[in-house]
Amino acid sequence: MTASRPGGRSARVRGQVLAAVLELLARDGLRGLRYEEVAELAGVHKTSVYRRWPTRDALVAEAFSDFAERNAPLPDTGDLRADLVEYLCALGAVAGSPQGRALNALRWAGISEEGELRELLRGVWTGRLESLQRRLDRAVADGQLPWADAELLDGPLAGAVHQHARLGGEFTRARAELLVDVVLAGIRAVPGP
Amino acid sequence: MTASRPGGRSARVRGQVLAAVLELLARDGLRGLRYEEVAELAGVHKTSVYRRWPTRDALVAEAFSDFAERNAPLPDTGDLRADLVEYLCALGAVAGSPQGRALNALRWAGISEEGELRELLRGVWTGRLESLQRRLDRAVADGQLPWADAELLDGPLAGAVHQHARLGGEFTRARAELLVDVVLAGIRAVPGP
Repeated sequence: MTASRPGGRSARVRGQVLAAVLELLARDGLRGLRYEEVAELAGVHKTSVYRRWPTRDALVAEAFSDFAERNAPLPDTGDLRADLVEYLCALGAVAGSPQGRALNALRWAGISEEGELRELLRGVWTGRLESLQRRLDRAVADGQLPWADAELLDGPLAGAVHQHARLGGEFTRARAELLVDVVLAGIRAVPGP
Repeated sequence: MTASRPGGRSARVRGQVLAAVLELLARDGLRGLRYEEVAELAGVHKTSVYRRWPTRDALVAEAFSDFAERNAPLPDTGDLRADLVEYLCALGAVAGSPQGRALNALRWAGISEEGELRELLRGVWTGRLESLQRRLDRAVADGQLPWADAELLDGPLAGAVHQHARLGGEFTRARAELLVDVVLAGIRAVPGP
């Protein structure tokens, strides 16, 4: 799951800490997360963790964001259909993994809490939607789509992958292609919002 | 959230017990669920709960199933678009509620556990998909749809509602209508699996 990371010592420490956060979250949930254990598992000093992430919520939000970017990136080759199929296949693999399922449970649990973490996780998600919106705006500009609404595209696609993952079972490339074709054809057939 | 229930004493006891299960699940999660507390909150004898639901997993699965049926039913008026819009509006209201969010967190957590509960929750979900498939088969028979795949319809629709609920904010009827229109138009435009 954990791809190798570029960069020097600082990037390496960041990677080790964020990987440790995810491992502990998947094992013990949000309430069990402690800086001491994170530092020990990451093999770094606790003060290095505190200095960079002064709050637990900031640490958790960055771990989620980093996980999503490394494991289900939104590619941009210029071919919207192909990029969406790749994105869904990656998302399907990660959503069906034990770590992905544990993190999804936490996302639901975290988002139902009031306070900083809820806003931070919302920020992670809206950031991804904004990045998809820019990608879609370019697809509209070059004639691949008549209108672009990132949430209306990502909701059905990513949502279908997550619904499937709850059942268990493999999410196939054929299913990703059919889903993308249905949603893109629907957007082309219906006036935008 | 709890609609009134028809039926006699047995149905009333069932309703009180399942409501108590959901309330305790939302408050304490799966691991905190104990028969004693369920019986006390429901105002019934513990033996009545054990007799009807000999395992905790069966009790939890029936509470989920009952909750889904009462709060996000799949209507069948004959007008597929209208029925799907009603279903999504109901689902949007319940998925955005604190109880709905707590139960979704549990569904993710529960489904990632091995064992009986995972199978039981899978059964609840596949039962709903089978019911939707029969509804869709009738829509195909009377010419409203060219092909029917319940998971490929429910995945994008219910999935989009759940993605939206994670962000918080209201799920509007206009959004439900646009989602249903996009997915139905896409299914009409693309060859089936």
